[in-house]
This record gives sequence, C-alpha cells and structure tokens, in this order.
Amino acid sequence: MDQILGWLAWIAPAVALIGLVAAAWLAAWVLKQDPGTPKMQHLSGLIQKGGKAFLIAEYKSLIIFVVVVAILLTVALPNKEASWLTALAFVTGGVLSVAAGYVGMYVATRANTRTTQAATKGIAGALRVAYRSGMTMGLVVAALGLFGIALWAIFFLINAKHPEPEIVDGFVMGASSIALFARVGGGIYTKAADVGADLVGKVEAGIPEDDPRNPGVIADNVGDNVGDVAGMGADLNESYAGALLAPMVLAVAIALTGNSAFSGDVNGTVFSVDGLLAIIMPLLFAAGGIIACIIGLAAVNTNDGSKIHKALNRGTYVTSGVTMLIIAGLCYAWQMVGDISAMWFCGCAAAGLAAGLAIGKLTEYYTSYHYKPVKKIAEASQTGSATNTIEGLSTGMLSTVAPALVLVVAVAIAFICGSQVGAGTELAAQFGVYGIGLSALGMLSTTAVTVGVDAYGPVADNAGGIAEMAGLPPEIRERTDALDTVGNTTAAVAKGFAVASAAITALALFAAFYTNLDRGLSLQGLGNLEIILTDPFVIIGVIIGAMMPFFFGAMTMGAVSRAANKMIVEIRRQFREIKGLLAGEEGVEPDTEACVTISTNAALREMLLPGILAVFIPVVLGILDVNILAGFLVGVLACGFLMSVYMANAGGAWDNAKKYIETGVHGGKGSEAHKAAVVGDTIGDPYKDTSGPSINILIKVVTVVSLVFVPLFISLGGGLIHGMFS
Amino acid sequence: MDQILGWLAWIAPAVALIGLVAAAWLAAWVLKQDPGTPKMQHLSGLIQKGGKAFLIAEYKSLIIFVVVVAILLTVALPNKEASWLTALAFVTGGVLSVAAGYVGMYVATRANTRTTQAATKGIAGALRVAYRSGMTMGLVVAALGLFGIALWAIFFLINAKHPEPEIVDGFVMGASSIALFARVGGGIYTKAADVGADLVGKVEAGIPEDDPRNPGVIADNVGDNVGDVAGMGADLNESYAGALLAPMVLAVAIALTGNSAFSGDVNGTVFSVDGLLAIIMPLLFAAGGIIACIIGLAAVNTNDGSKIHKALNRGTYVTSGVTMLIIAGLCYAWQMVGDISAMWFCGCAAAGLAAGLAIGKLTEYYTSYHYKPVKKIAEASQTGSATNTIEGLSTGMLSTVAPALVLVVAVAIAFICGSQVGAGTELAAQFGVYGIGLSALGMLSTTAVTVGVDAYGPVADNAGGIAEMAGLPPEIRERTDALDTVGNTTAAVAKGFAVASAAITALALFAAFYTNLDRGLSLQGLGNLEIILTDPFVIIGVIIGAMMPFFFGAMTMGAVSRAANKMIVEIRRQFREIKGLLAGEEGVEPDTEACVTISTNAALREMLLPGILAVFIPVVLGILDVNILAGFLVGVLACGFLMSVYMANAGGAWDNAKKYIETGVHGGKGSEAHKAAVVGDTIGDPYKDTSGPSINILIKVVTVVSLVFVPLFISLGGGLIHGMFS
Repeated sequence: MDQILGWLAWIAPAVALIGLVAAAWLAAWVLKQDPGTPKMQHLSGLIQKGGKAFLIAEYKSLIIFVVVVAILLTVALPNKEASWLTALAFVTGGVLSVAAGYVGMYVATRANTRTTQAATKGIAGALRVAYRSGMTMGLVVAALGLFGIALWAIFFLINAKHPEPEIVDGFVMGASSIALFARVGGGIYTKAADVGADLVGKVEAGIPEDDPRNPGVIADNVGDNVGDVAGMGADLNESYAGALLAPMVLAVAIALTGNSAFSGDVNGTVFSVDGLLAIIMPLLFAAGGIIACIIGLAAVNTNDGSKIHKALNRGTYVTSGVTMLIIAGLCYAWQMVGDISAMWFCGCAAAGLAAGLAIGKLTEYYTSYHYKPVKKIAEASQTGSATNTIEGLSTGMLSTVAPALVLVVAVAIAFICGSQVGAGTELAAQFGVYGIGLSALGMLSTTAVTVGVDAYGPVADNAGGIAEMAGLPPEIRERTDALDTVGNTTAAVAKGFAVASAAITALALFAAFYTNLDRGLSLQGLGNLEIILTDPFVIIGVIIGAMMPFFFGAMTMGAVSRAANKMIVEIRRQFREIKGLLAGEEGVEPDTEACVTISTNAALREMLLPGILAVFIPVVLGILDVNILAGFLVGVLACGFLMSVYMANAGGAWDNAKKYIETGVHGGKGSEAHKAAVVGDTIGDPYKDTSGPSINILIKVVTVVSLVFVPLFISLGGGLIHGMFS
Repeated sequence: MDQILGWLAWIAPAVALIGLVAAAWLAAWVLKQDPGTPKMQHLSGLIQKGGKAFLIAEYKSLIIFVVVVAILLTVALPNKEASWLTALAFVTGGVLSVAAGYVGMYVATRANTRTTQAATKGIAGALRVAYRSGMTMGLVVAALGLFGIALWAIFFLINAKHPEPEIVDGFVMGASSIALFARVGGGIYTKAADVGADLVGKVEAGIPEDDPRNPGVIADNVGDNVGDVAGMGADLNESYAGALLAPMVLAVAIALTGNSAFSGDVNGTVFSVDGLLAIIMPLLFAAGGIIACIIGLAAVNTNDGSKIHKALNRGTYVTSGVTMLIIAGLCYAWQMVGDISAMWFCGCAAAGLAAGLAIGKLTEYYTSYHYKPVKKIAEASQTGSATNTIEGLSTGMLSTVAPALVLVVAVAIAFICGSQVGAGTELAAQFGVYGIGLSALGMLSTTAVTVGVDAYGPVADNAGGIAEMAGLPPEIRERTDALDTVGNTTAAVAKGFAVASAAITALALFAAFYTNLDRGLSLQGLGNLEIILTDPFVIIGVIIGAMMPFFFGAMTMGAVSRAANKMIVEIRRQFREIKGLLAGEEGVEPDTEACVTISTNAALREMLLPGILAVFIPVVLGILDVNILAGFLVGVLACGFLMSVYMANAGGAWDNAKKYIETGVHGGKGSEAHKAAVVGDTIGDPYKDTSGPSINILIKVVTVVSLVFVPLFISLGGGLIHGMFS
C-alpha cells in the first residue's frame, strides 16, 4: 500500500511537465503570429533589449547574493549532512524562479507587437495573443514551482529514514529571495521610468502618453514587463511554493509526533497511510489546479470589446470550479483509503479559494471606476490635488477592512474544518493548523490563471504603446486600449489576490516555523516552547515587526523618488540638447537607452538594502530570542498585509479616478480636475507598484527565512537571551 | 507601620490640591493681564463663544453616552456590589476630564488677546502670558487625574478586605471615553475649519491667512483651541490616569498571588510593607512629578525672541531632572523601609522618562525645518505636489523606525530592571511587567509640562490671528509669529510624546488586563490562561487589531473631507452673496457663526461612530473569546503606534516644509514650490491633527475598556467560543 501511495507523489512532477508542455505550445503559438511592420518590430525590439538587459544585470548581481547565502546556509545550519542540501535546494529554488521570470519576459516582450498586429484585424485575435502570452508565464510559474517542490519532497520521502524536512524549506527560500529582488528591483525600475517620463513628458512638455519623442517611454514600457510580468510572476511563484511547503511541513510534524492518525511508527520513519497522504496531498491539490488552469484556458474567448472582462473572469471561474471538483474528488478518495474524515479538508481548501476570489472582487470594488469609491476620488479632484489625495488615502485605508475580515473568516473556517478531523484528540489544533495550510494552497491552486490574467496586462499596455509610437491608425489604439483598460482592473485584482495569498501563506509558514522550532527544542530536552503573547519580548517583536512595513515603504518610496529625479534630469536634458526632438522632426530620435540604463542602475542599487535587511533581520532576531522573532513575524504579517492592501488599493483607485475623468466627466482631459487626478495617480504609482508589492514579499521572506534557520535557533537553545529574564 | 504607610497615600491628593492651587494662581494671573483694545476683545470674544459653544454641545451629547455606558457597566459586570461603583468611578473620570478641558479652554481663549496685548511691549511678556496659560491647563490635567485616581485608590485600600480593584479601572475608562470624543471631535472640528478656510481663502480668493474677511477664520481659531488644548489635554489626561492605574493594578495582582515580597497574608487582604508601597508608590511618583513641574515653571523665561525654544526646553529638562531626583529618593526610601531592592524601579522610571524625551527629540528631527527630512520635502516641492506628497509620505513612514526602536528598548530595560527585583523567584516576570508600568509612569510624570508646552501653541497662534484681524502694526505680528513658530515645533514634539506615552501606557494596561483575567479565571477553577501567539484565534485578533488604525484613519479622514466640503460651500456662498465682503468694505462682516456651527455639527455627528466602535468592538471580541481580544489589543497597539507616529510626523513635516519655503527658499511664498507645499500641508492637516491623534486614543481606549470588562469575560469562562476548537 505504502509503495502505491509513494508512487502517487510522482503524479505531481508529471503534471508539472504537462503544464510546461502546454506553456511551450502557447509560447510557440504566440511567437508564430505576425509581428507587424518593421517599425513595430523595431520598437518591440527596443523593449526586448531593455527587458533582457535589466534581467541579466539583475541576475548577475543576484548571483553574488545567492552564493553568499548558500555558503551561509551551509556554514550556519548545525546539521552538516543537511545543510549543504538545504543550500542546494535554495539554489534550485532561485534558479527555477529566475527561469520562470526569464521565459515569461521573453514571450511577453515579443507578444506586444504581435498583439498590436492582431488588433488590426479585430479584438478577438488581439485578446487571444495577449492572453496566451500571459498564460505562458502563468503556467511556467506554477509548473516550475510544483516541479521543484515535488522533486525535493520525493527526495525527502525516499530518504524518510533520515528525515530533514528543512531541506525543502531551502527551495522556497530560494524562490523567495529571487522574488524579493524581482519585486523590489522591478518596482523601482518601472516607477522611476513611469513617474519620470510622465512628469517631464505629460506635465512639463505637454506631449501625450507613449509619445515616441519622449526618451523615457521605452523604459516605461520595459518597466511594465519587469514589474507585472517578472515581478508579479516571482511573487506568486513564491506564494505558490510556500503554500505547497507549509502543509507538507505541518503534516510531517504531526506524523513525527508519533501520536496521531498521521503517524506510522513512533520514530516517524514510516508514515501511516493518512500521514503519507497528508504529505502528498498538497502536491496533488496543486497538480489538480494546473490541470484546471489548462481547461480554463479554453474559456477565454470573445469577439466583443465590451466583453473582454467577462471572458477573463470566465477563465478564472471555470478554473476555480474545476479545481474545487478535483480537490473534492481527492479528499473523497483519501477518506475512502485512509482512517480519517478527510472530506473536512475540502472545506479548508474551499475557504481559501473563496477568500481569494472574494478579496479579488473587493479589490475591484475599491479600484474600478464603475463603483463609488473611485467616483468619489474623481469628484474630490474638482477641489484640487489636496482633496484628491486625502480621498485616495482614506479610500486606501478603508479598503483594508473588508479584505482583513474575509481573510480572518477564511482562516477561522479552515482552522475549524481542519480541527474537526482531529476532534476529540489532543492534536485537534495541529490538524486545524494543517487545514490553514490547505486553505492557502486552495487559494493558490489557481495561480497559473491569476498570473496569466495579470501578465496579460503589460502585453496589452505595450501593444497600445507600440501602436501609438508606430503611428498606426487610431482604431487600432482604441482596440488595444479596450484590452488595456481591462488589464488595469485585472492587475489590481491580481494584486489583491497576491496580498491575500501572501498573508495566508505566511500564516501557514509561520505555523510550520513554530511547529519545527517546538519539536526541535523538545527533542533537545529543552521542553515545549510556548510563545506567550503577554511576554514583553514577544510584544517587542510584534512592534518591531509592525514597524518593518513602514520602513520598507519608506525605503522603496524614497528609492523611486531618487531614481525618478535622475530620470527627470535626463529627459529634460535630452529635450534641451537634442535638436528637433520636441518639434518632432523626421529622423530625430531620443536616446532611449540612456533612460533604460538609469532605471536599470537605480533598481539594482536600491534593491540591495531592503533585500538584505529582509533576509538578515529575522536571523539576527532569532539568534537573540525566538520569542522576539515569533512576535516579529506576526507583526510583519498583520501590519504588512494591511499596509500592502492599503497601498495597492489607494494606488489603483487614484489611477482609475484619473482614467474615469479622462472618459469626460468633471471636465475630462486637460481640466483642473484632471490635473489634480494626475497628481494622485503619480503618488499612487510607487504606492501600488513598488512599495505595496515589496511589503507583500517582505511578509513571506521573513517567515520562510525564519523557517529555514530553525535548526540554528534550536542549536542556540532558542536564542542567546531566550528565557533569561523571565 | 501599615497605618503610617497607609497615610502616605494621602500625600497624592494633597499634592494634587497644591497643583490645583498653582493652576488657579496662574489662571488668575493670566486673566488679570490687559486684554487689549475693544476690537481685540471682540475677536477674542468670538473665539471664546465658539469654543464654549462647541464644548457645551459636545458635553451634552456625551451625557447620553456616559449614561448609557454607566448603565451598561452596572448591568453587564457580574459582581453587583462592585459594578455600580465601577460605573460611578467611570462617571467621575469623565467629569474630571471634562472639567480639565473646560478650564483649559476657558483660560486659553482668554489668554490669546492678552498675549497679543503683551506682545505690543515685548516678547518676554507675551511668552509669559501664553506659557502660563498653557501651564494652567497642564497642571489642571495632571492634578485632576492624580486627585481622582488617588481618592479611588485610597477608597480601595480602606476597603481592602473586600478588594475590587476594577473599580479604579472605571475611573480611567471615564477619562478615556471623554478623551476619545474630545480628540476625534476636536480633530474633525479644527481641520474642517482649517482646510475649508484655507482652500477657499488662500487658494481660491487669494487672501492671506487669518484675514478678517474670511468667514472661516474664527472657526479655525476656535479649532486650534479645541484640538490642541481640549483634545491634547484629554489625551494626556487619559494616558496619565492609565499610567497611574496600570502599576497599581499589577502590584495588587502580585500581592494577591500571596506568594511574593508584595504579599501580606495569603488572602491578600493585608498587604506586606512592600506590597503596600508598590501600590502607593505610583501615586507618590506622580505627586513628585507635579511638584517638579511647578519648579520647572520658573525656568521658562526669556527676553530674546530667538531663545523661546530654548526657554521652553529648559522648563522640560528642569522638570525631568527634578522628577528623577524625587523618584530616586522615593525608591531609596522604599529600599530602606522594605525588603526588596527597590532601587531597580528607579531604572524603570528613568527608561520611560528618557524614552519620552528621546522620542520628542526624534519627532523634532523629522518635523522641524532645521533638519534634513523637512528640507528634502521642500526640495521635492520644486517638481510639484506629487513629488512633495511622495516625499512627505515616505518621510512619515521612515520616521517611525527610530521611535519604535526607542520604545522597545525602553520597554526591555524597564522589564529587565523590574525583573531584577524578583530575580530568582518565579515572579520575576511579574515584577518586570510592574517595571514596565513604572516606566510608563516615569514618562508621564512630566505630563503637566508637556501639556503646558503644547497648550501654549494655540494661544500664540490665536494671538497672531487676533493681531492680524485687529489690524495691529506688523511688528506685533512678528513677535507673535516668533512664539507661534516655536509652538508648532513644540506641538509636534508633544504629539510624539503623546503617541509614545499612549503606546507604553497601553502596554502596561494590557499587562494589567491579562493579569486580572488570568487571576480571575484561575479563581474560577478554569486553570491558568495562556495566550499563545501561535493560536490562530490570537493571530486573527492581531490582524483585526492591526486593521483598526486603518479603519479609524479612513473614518476620520473621510469625516474631515466631508466637513471641509460643507465649509467650502458655505465660505464660497458668503463671498458670493455678502456684498462688499471680499472687497473689504468698511462695516461689512462675514457670518463667522455659520462656519462655527458647521464645524461644531460635523464634529459632533462624525465623532459618534468611531467612538462607539472603539468602545464596543473590544467588548464584543472579549465576549467571543479572550484570545481574540488579547491578539486584537496587541495588534491595535503595535500597528496603531506606528500609524499614529507616521501620520503625525508626515503632517508635521509637510507643515514645516511649507513654512520653510515661506522663509524664502525655493522661490518663497507664491512660487510653484510653495503651491506644491501648500498641497502637502493640506493633506497633512487631517493626518497630524485628526487621524493620528485619534488612533492614539484608540490604542488606550480599547485596552482600558477590555480591562474594565474583565469580570464579564471571566464570568463567561473566557468567552463563548473560548477553547472550543483547540
């Protein structure tokens, strides 16, 4: 029986390979499309070059970081047999995340001109190109994540006689670290270019957006890809890996306590049927999600410009429905084979999936101009930029309330459902926490579609830019704009989803962190670890943790400020010094590469400090006292979740308030209200695309780093000052 | 011996009376000064009338709230003998807070014109009038707080055979509730008037600040008093009462465990010498602080306009030094009389006092234009209001880092010092927590001076307004402006102090909450309560708690937005409909009362929802599960502290960046940079004067309400769903 069950684990990498094949097919299809006129291809080529240059420069500087951390892992982790494997897993996690980002960018920066070209024939074709390009990224992100985790998990299961589950943690930490730099660096890159190009081009020189005379436009277009394709992809890749890891770690921990339905024998070297299934099931849930995503792909199709949004939503709903069916089937099968009432776990996954959809919808409510909040910001723009800003900030803050409640309700449901499995035993709470892990996984099982819908955005946006710069007839631009408008909303929804998934994943990883720490300390004979909220050191940790999102927000906003200033100086210089550029003389071209270089260098320089702090602060706190660290993690989680929602939604709402005015209300383009709304939009740029997403990653990175370093903290008896003053 | 010690407690109300006498003397002195010309007296009269009208309207609507809550307390608290006393204490706390606010406003709104008149002769006299008016408020706030707490504590000690320490909690809850409404209502009042008057007057009509033609100016001047005198006074009155209460509750709890140096006999009905001293000592610390404040008063005196700031600082430093000397003396005496090494407690108080000063200094660094952060905001204003806003937001976020670290270091030092007293016993941690309570008290012992320095600000500001409106020669305005500029910085410093004191007081009150809860549950035979951070319900609580400051921020910002809009409409109407008003024709006067009414009504209406939520949410959560409530309190504390610092400092920095540009840099008044800075200043107005301070109160209110309702939660066995799922 065990053997058969063991072989089930191999389904996961197999499905991951199917996902990769599907992604390859999509990519090949996209690349086969007509890339348009030479002028369009030239423009797309500039974006490709800029994107590639940034990624390669980024990866180069990350190599040093990865090597240093890998050495650190090998040296610092006490178990020498496991430590180099952890470091190896760390490297593979990083490499797969990089690969996903690279492939996604490669396709996206080639799909843009093909989307423009397809738009010359109609919307349906353009939608198909853009969406399939996005789904390439989506499938690659999910499939590579599943593939890596599954292989390491199988490695662990095969070597289960010598179980070192923290090795798999290393894989997630690798994905996390890359995600951190991709998000922070990408966020700084895109907003430095965007803010700089807008302030000089639109505000000072009075030329339209995406005007070919503006030297910052190519950097801006590259930035869209860097931020929303590579950045968001790495972000969800990390959440996905984390959500897969957390329930597995928790299952192993319950099994190893040797006192539950999950346990085989007391040494935990042989798992019971339920124990094995509990470890493998997350992989199968995720595999089911990938299959559902491939099915959902087919549902996205429309010929009607006004129905693009519906078509994209249909894809998401079909995927979610199919995913839940597969998960329900898996839980039913588990209940048949095993000894526990595993159908409860289905409720956990459903809670997570529903919460993800609900938070996405709430994000749409607060950031789309079809609803009251954005309309109110547009209205407030009439009395100037101060009232526009106040209304935007207050909308952002208010928009945190409902998602926070949805999140806590989902967590409560998942916990209660999970604990029903162990009801009556002393392990009820642990089963409940395992349920929280499954709910994170439920939410993230549709990752491929979420990333796909999000990565579709910059392709549509770029397609519009290329149409503008190549001087195509206005109806083409109108079609790409229809795609783009929807892309803005879906991007906001994806951000909401990303934040929610980050929070619930971090929560599950936090549980894994505590569980491993507790087990380790009691194995050392140090007794059970109870992290008491009323311990002043725990509260000190919570305060420091709550401070981190503010610190991160300040660092990343400041970075955008500085980089945008350099961009402004350069664009002004070109307008002044390149003769005939502003007049639009034939044959006079801006030096777009200079701007690309500024964004690239700024991003690379500015991402280092936040990145390094996020990795090292938890280690330092843990070395001091795991009580402080545990408080810290909860502080980062709670405050970071809210800050991230606040910043993302405020930014999205400002953006769409401006777009709403551009549809003609309150005086339309060029009115005083529009000018005020442009100010709000500019403030919102770093809010929603740099700081918010960076905090998002921060939440996960600090948790997974803490999880990986658990063996070190255990070897220090819980930290140097642990228990010294109480 | 016990008898003698018991009598020591009476020192506190006696010193409080001395403080009141000193305040009365100061008030009489201020009122004796020359109130100036009839025109000036008329203007001051308008402000007096507006301020009085608001306070009376506010108090009227609070009567309903106080009565409802008092009935609720009587009904909901299970111990019927104690519940009506708790309700009575609640009412007295509210009444004394109201009295303090009323007296302070009475003097401040009469000191303004007297300060203007004194300024005709020189700065020294004007400073003396303004500062003595502020100190009247400061002394009244501290003295009434000490008086009330001391009498209730003595009542408790006399009835110690039947100890119901939660009765005294009711007093603090009364102060808290009034503070909440005073802060929220006052903040909405002042900023609705300020934003409205500025946007129409300065921006649209192009008339200077405080111009007598502007119908909103009187409301604006009233608002300064309502916010910075009555609001800040009530805020610190609450912190002061809370900081006094927390260590006393903790001391009683340690004594009642019947197992420490604090305990007399095992029933806890007779305290040991150390136990009695531990309960009484907070009162004596506070009494020492009041004496030190009276001594410090004499140190504030200067004839040199450039040295006003130094003179005010001297007052603070002298007070702090004398306070520490008295506290050290008290601890030494305790160590002589008792059996414990009480000198360690001196370290706790010193840590709190030093942290308060340090956070004040840090606030000054981030908000005064003599330092880099504000200069950078001014610089960023040159590229427009978007970059000004981004820089301001990021400065605000960055400014949270150092205060958070100072706070946690102070808490750690206080805890470690305190736990040394109980070193080696199992009560070390409880002594440590008592030490945290003493550090809060150390910080707040100088409350009278802090309130005094803060309440001096609006007097100076009003004095300038009166000089302007009465058409006095410009050198008078220059002198009052010198006072006012310093007042802006000291107000920012006081805000920093208020936030820090709120956080540490809430922390101490949280410890008291847990201690009482734990003792109560185990007395019920329900075992010890351990609030485990890794319990999902605790984390759910933390997330809901962290959400509250965002919710509060959104509600209060939205309230200002709505009220300011009404104000804008009214001022525009008057400019349009009152003939000759804008032209400045002789005899044509604006209808200032209409604007006063708008601010008053808006404040009264909008303060209700936030106020009611802050009181009822903790009760509801506690009825559900004390684990959720405990997490909630820590979430509010951590996230609220940071949000409050962020908002207060961002607002202060924007304000002073504008003032910096007005000194002539970056083009000075009327330049593009100045316009951008005005936008930042306007955004900062509700940030620093409404939302930030409201969150400040929120932190304390939720904690003290939870503390008061502990007996209810105990009677429910820790909440309806407590322990059901784990």
